[in-house]
Amino acid sequence: MSVQRILGIDPGLRVTGFGVIEKQGAQLIYVASGCIKSNADQALPERIASIFSGIREVVSTYAPTQAAVEKVFVNVNPQATLLLGQARGAAIAALVSGGLPVAEYTALQLKQAVVGHGKAAKEQVQHMVVRLLSLPGTPSADAADALACAICHAHAGQGTGVLQTTGRRIRGGRVIG
Amino acid sequence: MSVQRILGIDPGLRVTGFGVIEKQGAQLIYVASGCIKSNADQALPERIASIFSGIREVVSTYAPTQAAVEKVFVNVNPQATLLLGQARGAAIAALVSGGLPVAEYTALQLKQAVVGHGKAAKEQVQHMVVRLLSLPGTPSADAADALACAICHAHAGQGTGVLQTTGRRIRGGRVIG
Repeated sequence: MSVQRILGIDPGLRVTGFGVIEKQGAQLIYVASGCIKSNADQALPERIASIFSGIREVVSTYAPTQAAVEKVFVNVNPQATLLLGQARGAAIAALVSGGLPVAEYTALQLKQAVVGHGKAAKEQVQHMVVRLLSLPGTPSADAADALACAICHAHAGQGTGVLQTTGRRIRGGRVIG
Repeated sequence: MSVQRILGIDPGLRVTGFGVIEKQGAQLIYVASGCIKSNADQALPERIASIFSGIREVVSTYAPTQAAVEKVFVNVNPQATLLLGQARGAAIAALVSGGLPVAEYTALQLKQAVVGHGKAAKEQVQHMVVRLLSLPGTPSADAADALACAICHAHAGQGTGVLQTTGRRIRGGRVIG
């Protein structure tokens, strides 16, 4: 039986969610999840360093074999888009420098993978992540998104990962439909 | 005599310029410069990996003690802003993971440091970098910007780095005045 250990990442400058699952045959097993926070009082290079070293620590602790990162979208605020981009660049740098292959999925794909449609609310994603992974509690929204990203990648390997990407609507920098 | 070796970086997804100078007392000595290019045909994670490993290679080859990165500004194209942000995040991650302290300077500050005013054209920056470092040839615009960033940081250490940052004008994602 093939075993894949997948690290999902929901990147953000303030909070980066992470979630690790194991795919044992057709079964998905929860391994770990959480958040990497950066201090808003610090200069950008220090915040980038926190994200980078936080992800490297997750990689060395849980030894994933693959990574999946949520695609981010342009925000209504260009400065926020630039900051989010820098956080995401640091996150991907941490993954690739850790030797991991990195796949990318849109928020729409995550939602379709875990809820079945792209218009799901954050709470529905959290709810379905809890059900799909038989969690004893509800992870934070960022950790749930990261776990959803890992689940999406696990499904993608089964040929169900090519999902509709047209007709999406964006609100507050997020694909919502 | 204190010797600082400064690595300047002009980040970009397609081309990242780098320039290394040494500050020996009041004198600035050219060490190296060049460009790290990423392949536009590759997926974003591979391009991020090229930027990250390219900068790590420059750091291990030239052993700088400090780094200075050009601040980037929001582009008229939000998608381009997001891509540039990711490239810059990867570049800063490479520097901080290499143990370097990272300073940031705006294009306005670079221009004021090397040309004397913030409205200088690219060619003027290249020309003055050649003069200030007594170069035998003209570096590419990206490498010249990176060297200008390093020069700006060298001057900042002498207390001339706090420059006017108000009243700037932006055209095509660049501060031009």
